[in-house]
Amino acid sequence: MLLDGGAIEALEKRYRAALINSVTGFKPANLVGTVDPDGNSNLAIMSSVVHLGSHPPLLGLVVRPNPVDRHTLDNILETGCYTINHVAETFIAEAHQTAARYPKDVSEFDATGLSEHYAEDFPAPFVDQANVRLGMKLREHHELAINGTHFVIGEIVLLDVPDEAVGADGSLDLGTAGTIALSGLDSYHRTRRVKRMAYAKPDQPPREAE
Amino acid sequence: MLLDGGAIEALEKRYRAALINSVTGFKPANLVGTVDPDGNSNLAIMSSVVHLGSHPPLLGLVVRPNPVDRHTLDNILETGCYTINHVAETFIAEAHQTAARYPKDVSEFDATGLSEHYAEDFPAPFVDQANVRLGMKLREHHELAINGTHFVIGEIVLLDVPDEAVGADGSLDLGTAGTIALSGLDSYHRTRRVKRMAYAKPDQPPREAE
Repeated sequence: MLLDGGAIEALEKRYRAALINSVTGFKPANLVGTVDPDGNSNLAIMSSVVHLGSHPPLLGLVVRPNPVDRHTLDNILETGCYTINHVAETFIAEAHQTAARYPKDVSEFDATGLSEHYAEDFPAPFVDQANVRLGMKLREHHELAINGTHFVIGEIVLLDVPDEAVGADGSLDLGTAGTIALSGLDSYHRTRRVKRMAYAKPDQPPREAE
Repeated sequence: MLLDGGAIEALEKRYRAALINSVTGFKPANLVGTVDPDGNSNLAIMSSVVHLGSHPPLLGLVVRPNPVDRHTLDNILETGCYTINHVAETFIAEAHQTAARYPKDVSEFDATGLSEHYAEDFPAPFVDQANVRLGMKLREHHELAINGTHFVIGEIVLLDVPDEAVGADGSLDLGTAGTIALSGLDSYHRTRRVKRMAYAKPDQPPREAE
């Protein structure tokens, strides 16, 4: 199927959303936890966390300007902090359900049965059920002129990962951590590593890591 | 393993890079194809493509300010166009090898054995071996103050996907397309769908799609 810009524009709205949400490839599935200034918690599934740098440890997060994601954005901008929690295979249904359009005074923790976990001196809620959890501090925020989407940049100030998933070189084995991958709007995938490659060098052919 | 900001800062540099590059979860693996104003092609593997919107169809791309990725960024800014090509299991080694620090006058197509494919009226090269290919026009560009990383926003103006991978609702079956998932800096994964969820509604419990 070969579509140009006009043909994409002419697609039926939901068909286009399903297709365009699929074309980036596999996506991370994360639950973003926040709290408003009155202490009301919020939890939202997001597939748009992206690595920006390791030193300092910075991640980007795209937040859509729709009513559901807007609660998360408001809380991040008002409190300056949020959590990122990997969705694992054991709570896919609960995680997906956080995308429902609950009123602002309903916590998605209560609505879905996921449990809040708090770390000392960090106001935003972590997901108790998650194996990989990050505490984030807001560092920079851009509203993208082209479509009103927000790009939130945060620094990792807390990192909680299972010991048994961390390799000798620091890499995290996401399969051991139970982390799943997302595609499109609604498809959740288990993964199996097929290749681990060695550091690429221009004077050597590609080779697998030992 | 529970690390605060100071403990992350104190990690050995390569260990920290491997760990922090793993903590976002699974990532897309895409080859970004560009051409300079003299027609010299460039190809770089990137794990930072992110969905920004479907109407218009917009994607974000994080480009690091290092020498390898800089060639891609320069070409995008000079020509206004680029391609995004899903890495498939059949050419993982070649795709990974594009990360090697080749001089600017060496095309990663030649160096890795991947083949260029050109669409009419579109100057940037697609990867002939890829099953899912996007032609992108540059729409907006931000340099992120915090670490010099660039956020490139492009619109999909050409979309080439295998017919057999597109569902009746427009969603793309990435398994059928042969697309793989990336974790960390170097681990490539095959996937298997475990759940497809129905659209989440606040007055209904989570349920799988029919």
